[in-house]
Formats: sequence, C-alpha cells, structure tokens
Amino acid sequence: MYRYKITFAYDGSNFSGFQIQPHKRTVEQVLKNAVNKIAKHPTPEIPVIGSGRTDAGVHALNQVAHFDIPYHLSNESMRKALNSILPLDILIKKAELVDSDFHARYSAHNKTYRYRVDQGEFVNPFKRNYTAHFKYPLDLTLMRKAAKNFIGEHDFTSFVASGSQAKSNVRTVYKIDIKRDKLRNEVVFDFTGNGFLYNQIRIMVAFLLEIGSKQRPVDDVKRVLAAKDRTQARMTAPASGLYLVSVDYGNDRESD
Amino acid sequence: MYRYKITFAYDGSNFSGFQIQPHKRTVEQVLKNAVNKIAKHPTPEIPVIGSGRTDAGVHALNQVAHFDIPYHLSNESMRKALNSILPLDILIKKAELVDSDFHARYSAHNKTYRYRVDQGEFVNPFKRNYTAHFKYPLDLTLMRKAAKNFIGEHDFTSFVASGSQAKSNVRTVYKIDIKRDKLRNEVVFDFTGNGFLYNQIRIMVAFLLEIGSKQRPVDDVKRVLAAKDRTQARMTAPASGLYLVSVDYGNDRESD
Repeated sequence: MYRYKITFAYDGSNFSGFQIQPHKRTVEQVLKNAVNKIAKHPTPEIPVIGSGRTDAGVHALNQVAHFDIPYHLSNESMRKALNSILPLDILIKKAELVDSDFHARYSAHNKTYRYRVDQGEFVNPFKRNYTAHFKYPLDLTLMRKAAKNFIGEHDFTSFVASGSQAKSNVRTVYKIDIKRDKLRNEVVFDFTGNGFLYNQIRIMVAFLLEIGSKQRPVDDVKRVLAAKDRTQARMTAPASGLYLVSVDYGNDRESD
Repeated sequence: MYRYKITFAYDGSNFSGFQIQPHKRTVEQVLKNAVNKIAKHPTPEIPVIGSGRTDAGVHALNQVAHFDIPYHLSNESMRKALNSILPLDILIKKAELVDSDFHARYSAHNKTYRYRVDQGEFVNPFKRNYTAHFKYPLDLTLMRKAAKNFIGEHDFTSFVASGSQAKSNVRTVYKIDIKRDKLRNEVVFDFTGNGFLYNQIRIMVAFLLEIGSKQRPVDDVKRVLAAKDRTQARMTAPASGLYLVSVDYGNDRESD
C-alpha cells in the first residue's frame, strides 16, 4: 500500500461539512468517492482521513488528509487524477507520497484558521457565503488587547459548543492576529493553536466582536475563561466567515 | 402612482437569469414578489421593468429597474423595505422616486459590462462562479489591438447567439478596456456600448481570448464582422465571468 498526503481547498458553501453523513454531500464523501474510483473500487472501500472536521459552510484553503492505495502514482499524476474526478468546489493543491506512519490527524502539530468579517453597511451579495457581516464600528486596539488573554494554555470550556465530544477542553493558542483589510472593507482574524474545540473559533470571534463594538469590557476574556461556563459567551459567529488556512506537521517526513 | 427607479446588485449564481420563467427562480420574479408585498398584493400585480435581461449565472453590480406603486415612501424607506424582504443574493443599493416618463429600458443611453478571466493554473474553488477560467498566456497588446476593430457602429451578426430576437444587429461599441489585475491573477475586460445583443459580450470575449492566445490572427475581428456569419466566431465564454456594471441614463430626471 502507498500512503498519500493531500493538501486541498474547498468552498464550503455547498457542502454539509467535512464528515460523512448519510444522504448528505460532504467533503469526506466526495474525496472518498474520488480515491476509490482511482483505486478501481476495492472492497473494503478505502477511507480518507482528514486532519479534522469542518462544519457546514466552513471553507478551507489548505486542508490535509491521507489515504492508502494499492497503486503507485507520481505525486503529480495523483494530483491530476483526483482533480479530474472531483467537482469544481474542491481543488487538490498538492499530493505527496508519505511514510506509512504519517497520519493527517495524529501527526498534526498545530492549525491556523482565518475568520473574515465584512464591515459594509449591508450584506454584499457576492460575500454572503464568504464572510460574516458586522456593520458596527470595531476598535481593533481593544480586540487585540482582549485577544492576548486567549494566548497560552487554557481550559476553553466557556468557548466550546455543547455538541463537543472532546475529553479535555484544555488547548493552547499560540497566536491571534487581527488586521483591517481596507481594500475589502473587512476585519480579518488569524488564529494559530495546537487544536481547536467544536465552534471554539466562532465563539471566540463573536466574543471579540462584542468587545470591539463595546458591548463587553475589554478584560472580559479573563473572567469568562475562569468561569468555565458556556452560557457566559452567548454568541457564535456564522460559519461563512471561517477558513481553515493550514495544518502544520512540523518536519514532514516525505518520500518520493 | 409613484414611479421608483432601483439600482441593485445580484450574485447570478443561483438565479435562472433575469427574466420571469415559470417554476424558475429569477431576478425579475424575486423583485416583483418584494414590490407586490410592499404594495399589499394589489390586483393586477405590479410589474417590474428591468433595463434588460441577463442570462443564468450572469452577475450585476448596478442593474436598474423601475416600477409604479400606489404608495409614497421616502427613497431610503423604499430601499430598506425592499432589502428587508429580498434574499441575500440581491441587494438594493439605491431607490429613487423618478418622473413617470423614466423607463428603465427605453431611457437607457448605454451600458457597461465587465468580464473577468481567471488565469490560475486550475479552477479556483472560490472563483468558479465569479470568473471564467483560461490558463493559457494572454497577450494584452494583441487583444487591445484587435478590440479596436469592435469600436464604433457595426453589424454584429457574427457575434450574436442564435436565440436573439433583435430586429437589427447594428450596435455601437464606445469603449473596450482590457487590464491585468495582478493581485487577483485575472484579465478584466470592460465594454461600454449603446446596447449589446444576446451573448454578444461573451462571444466577443471568447474571440479576443483566441486572439490573445494566438489561436487567431489579430486582424480577424474585421474579417469576421464583415462576414456577418455567426459560424465564424465559434465560442461563447461562460456566463460566470460576466457582470453588468452600470446602465447610464444620461441626465436622470429625478424627483423627491
């Protein structure tokens, strides 16, 4: 068997998220269909293992997955073969033959997510699926100050959705960048951490938007983290603004 | 009765074009529903008259329409009332009370269309509905030289789709701008004319792409215009790249 790591982008608008669900169009299902077609439909079917799930409507610029296949193809042939089968809202950017101990989920060191907030007066019809919309003025200095309190290892119980099945809510956030994109009239948040809980980024973004628009005091992150109580952070920002930017595997051990 | 002119944007991806068709979601139908809701569903229904049709998948940045309604609302109230009813893929940018002799179609002096061509190696999942994809190198100098031959009054019989019901194929093109957008890795065409025939822009763009990629000689526009034969210009560029940018009414006579 040959193990391939694939790096791919998708527009999440028309997917019911990453994970396979019966009768739903999901990223995992579409990828699995393509891989099994290339492998000439073996029994049992070849599974495709992603670095993690994304929800319905969430996008990816460089999601990662792996699979094992009984045929050897050059990296470029594998990439082309997959792209020739896949629909246009998913694009394989890279395919790499890797060691059999590479695992898309377990080998991941950290992940970076982006969240785009459009600041136009109205919802832009061309951005409705690609940003969140928040028309009120945002004070970036306040949000950056508040975001510093998320950095480091914390119990994020107050910032996880109720559906989470994680054993522990302790995660480490390494970096949060908040920038204004004047050309696009957006505020853009970049988060890097060793992993994020279910809806964690979207709850943190909604919380920072409340601080940036002065609906919450700037030091409220500390208080709410300490409370370990989901009801303290009430809002979840919409899926449309969220992008998985990259998955970092440290020193990848690649062959081929 | 009060006549309102509305200026609006729409993402054409999920519309079966502008014109009302049975059992289809069209821009005209969605607007008509909103206007008749505001007018409390009068009999007969109030029609909405657009400046012209756009095909399925074609976008608009500033399309124009008018309608007559028995109630007076301020321009701002009309805009807000419509936006509160309309779906998010259509946005009213402006509503203006106008004289009753204003007509969205007949009063139009000229129109500007844009066509966006993505030059990436692969179809970008986030641009698949918003650009055409053409990966081969394009010589802008050749395309600009060729485009000059479209300028002026011509019989565009060679550049009209077979479904056209126009009485005359004579139109005047005032201006064609062709630019490279380096940031987006696109080539962008802007066309201004006194009106365009069915699929005319998309056929002209496909023709210019053939010239820019050296599949046709630069002086072929002249020859094919003179031939007045649709079979000479074989290709039609896809709807996804086309945007109605603006409709110019000269000196608008507005009241309110």
